[in-house]
Amino acid sequence: MNSPTFSFQWLSFLFLIFSTSVSATLYNIPRLNPIGGILQDSETVSTSANVLDDLETFYFDQTLDHFNYRPESYTTFQQRYIINSKYWGGANSSAPILAYLGAEAPLDGDLAFAGFLTDNAVKFKALILYIEHRYYGKSMPFGSREEAFRNASTLGYFNSAQAIADYAEIIIHLKKRLHAKYSPVIVIGASYGGMLASWFRLKYPHVTIGALASSAPILYFDDITPQDGYYSIVTKDFREASESCYQTIKKSWSEIDEVASKPGGLSILSKTFKTCDPLNKSLELKDYLETIYARAAQYNHPPRYPVNIVCGGIDGAPFGTDILTKIFAGVVAYSGNQSCYVNGLKNISETTVGWRWQTCSEMVIPIGIGNDSMFPPDPFILSSYIEMCRSLYGVPPRPHWVTTYYGGHDIKLILHRFGSNIIFSNGLRDPYSSGGVLENISRTVVAVHTVNGSHCLDLHPEKQSDPEWLVMQRKEEVKIIKGWITKYYIDLLAFKK
Amino acid sequence: MNSPTFSFQWLSFLFLIFSTSVSATLYNIPRLNPIGGILQDSETVSTSANVLDDLETFYFDQTLDHFNYRPESYTTFQQRYIINSKYWGGANSSAPILAYLGAEAPLDGDLAFAGFLTDNAVKFKALILYIEHRYYGKSMPFGSREEAFRNASTLGYFNSAQAIADYAEIIIHLKKRLHAKYSPVIVIGASYGGMLASWFRLKYPHVTIGALASSAPILYFDDITPQDGYYSIVTKDFREASESCYQTIKKSWSEIDEVASKPGGLSILSKTFKTCDPLNKSLELKDYLETIYARAAQYNHPPRYPVNIVCGGIDGAPFGTDILTKIFAGVVAYSGNQSCYVNGLKNISETTVGWRWQTCSEMVIPIGIGNDSMFPPDPFILSSYIEMCRSLYGVPPRPHWVTTYYGGHDIKLILHRFGSNIIFSNGLRDPYSSGGVLENISRTVVAVHTVNGSHCLDLHPEKQSDPEWLVMQRKEEVKIIKGWITKYYIDLLAFKK
Repeated sequence: MNSPTFSFQWLSFLFLIFSTSVSATLYNIPRLNPIGGILQDSETVSTSANVLDDLETFYFDQTLDHFNYRPESYTTFQQRYIINSKYWGGANSSAPILAYLGAEAPLDGDLAFAGFLTDNAVKFKALILYIEHRYYGKSMPFGSREEAFRNASTLGYFNSAQAIADYAEIIIHLKKRLHAKYSPVIVIGASYGGMLASWFRLKYPHVTIGALASSAPILYFDDITPQDGYYSIVTKDFREASESCYQTIKKSWSEIDEVASKPGGLSILSKTFKTCDPLNKSLELKDYLETIYARAAQYNHPPRYPVNIVCGGIDGAPFGTDILTKIFAGVVAYSGNQSCYVNGLKNISETTVGWRWQTCSEMVIPIGIGNDSMFPPDPFILSSYIEMCRSLYGVPPRPHWVTTYYGGHDIKLILHRFGSNIIFSNGLRDPYSSGGVLENISRTVVAVHTVNGSHCLDLHPEKQSDPEWLVMQRKEEVKIIKGWITKYYIDLLAFKK
Repeated sequence: MNSPTFSFQWLSFLFLIFSTSVSATLYNIPRLNPIGGILQDSETVSTSANVLDDLETFYFDQTLDHFNYRPESYTTFQQRYIINSKYWGGANSSAPILAYLGAEAPLDGDLAFAGFLTDNAVKFKALILYIEHRYYGKSMPFGSREEAFRNASTLGYFNSAQAIADYAEIIIHLKKRLHAKYSPVIVIGASYGGMLASWFRLKYPHVTIGALASSAPILYFDDITPQDGYYSIVTKDFREASESCYQTIKKSWSEIDEVASKPGGLSILSKTFKTCDPLNKSLELKDYLETIYARAAQYNHPPRYPVNIVCGGIDGAPFGTDILTKIFAGVVAYSGNQSCYVNGLKNISETTVGWRWQTCSEMVIPIGIGNDSMFPPDPFILSSYIEMCRSLYGVPPRPHWVTTYYGGHDIKLILHRFGSNIIFSNGLRDPYSSGGVLENISRTVVAVHTVNGSHCLDLHPEKQSDPEWLVMQRKEEVKIIKGWITKYYIDLLAFKK
């Protein structure tokens, strides 16, 4: 178990899409993973080593379909959950449970990532529970990934409503097993997992007393958030890092097109960017670059700040260097020295395959590129998107279901008198913060954000090098959660028979 | 369209169960209909005639399975909804919508029943919307009732989570169609429909600003409410009406057994009770009587008060009349003069068939008879119940799912800081009030009950003869709902862009 990088897999995913007849640009919906970026962080990995020793793994007989009573719906599968009870105060003292809700990846990577839980478990005397999302990792219905992903008939059960129902079943089961009926549960999730955490608090308030939803773009559905929100922030991040870097990137796209349009132009581009295989079209290169910029912005974590690294490469080229050579210098600065770039590995991860289904069924996040960014405009066209998904799976997505089931429109009007105890945390440099909740909705449904933060940064393990604003963000979150627990104990005294 | 009585159909349902090899007593879960009792109320029927003229019927292309993406899940069916826009203030003034959530019956009967909506629509300038529950009336998946009820594979989609998702889809659709985005919606439901209304407010707060849940026994699941709650209240109702009536009933069961055990005893019982067909076992008679007492108590509506009528029959027999003749006099008083009694009609209603599936899949309401009632003890045994359902449908019920999905345990502890704007209304003489919410949970999740009220009485059309306490209960409900709407308009001014 270690901290995986998903970047190569993600690129391979794009490659997979290229190989279909559908326009690739429609698929430029950046992944929602909490973990990302090519630059490895040795501190994170070393932290994880200690944590892993305290873990126990269990499997729960999970119902395939919670909302249907056909005979097939009763099929069960083994769902993995992992606990760390080292710090737990125990059932007798109704000590809390911090429940990490797994997202679109095998659970293993989350164990090292979700340092917020281990770093704070001592303070809360909390048991830590990690639950794997169905159809990922070892929580595979139908016996194998191959079977589970065979077609829409087996994939049909793979969606967020079923996933949060799974979480409810496992939390209730575990509390029963531990005789911990009155232990308060705090759910915590990152990115898509953060959406699940906030939705879980709304749909299952009887199972959790509160949710910490880190970088959860729950408003990036339907027409709530402008489609260009994501790439606007990527652009802003680069422009704030370096005006000249931003200008260079902005100019590079037409430069690529121009070179590509010449005889032998693709070969020139292949050479300039040291591609692993000859480029088939310039779009391959442009998508690769878009991906790097988007990821650098999304995971623009301290202390390295990848946006600065990319721009350092671009701006650091000697005076007079041409635009594309500068851009390549940015790629090398970001990716490190490699034997080749752009279209190398073709390994397809589980996340790639799983998230593709999710975005093509339920999680339709309409991200397009507007006219006012450093990228070529590329609007999100729902009808084309629907057709692409239908051609991939035989069934169309349901692009309005998320807002029908979970809401999102006029969220302040709707929720300020409904619900309680949700923290929406965001870093404003994270492009996904454009679809996040950035304003307090009520006294207990609150937004905690940092101007310089990036995607899911607050849930990363604490580090010596953490900037003050990050330390403060986490402190604020811990303080709020402590408040929930304190209030809960008061209620428990008042209402328990 | 008129106000149907379900009593005969219900008896026939019991008959159907008798004809299986399973013990009938396991099925003595009284029905949850808002409408009931044999005694017809001419005023109700006459009210309905005017209402029906203002109605328009529509059909919505409803998705068969909201929580699954298999190709079959995309199948649609025609779901009926009916509107009355006579009193509506219109979309421009964001005038409210009162949405009646249909329960386990064709919608037609509800139109006349749900007088609360028509009586108050003028005050609210409200549009009235009635939505039919899937698998009832004209809202039948698979083209026909025969197909829809063929087996567990077609019945699997028939459950409350799917039903309230249907309601969300239709309300959102209708508001869009009427350009009434900001019209607040109040959902109103009775009995099982009341459960749906309260659950709808909890699960879809973005679709409704509040719920009136009349006689909704949301706590009659799992082990939350003692199993004997229902029949304890039936007993109390009779005892309060007449101690001697209660004593007579209490003694009658052993009397029936004694007569039945004699040679030719069943013929004697058949003769005493003027049964339509000769009795096959005494249980037939006992279940019939239990049913009458339960229904008299549940629908103990003014001005007739059926419990008093039954007891009037029993107590009114001349001095010296034997117990069973007294009991029969009670039957005749309740049922009126008929050519025969007990095992007459065998017509099976849609509700009977539908509710049987619902109680055998999701709505497992564990009603037993304890040792301290006027009935023979008859505990609810979950394992036998599960086996019976499995033998009927090939799949077992999920008796814990309702509390997993909707909660219910420790409701005050859980909800007093979560959610808002729900009225739980009850009449304490309604045996189902034992599973109702009878205490305020918070400032806006409140209980409104009347000591003398019966099942869903507050939603019946207003009548001249209504007692003061009923008038006051309705006034209180209207006042609370007005408060929600007023607050909503203030919020709308504050938050609308």
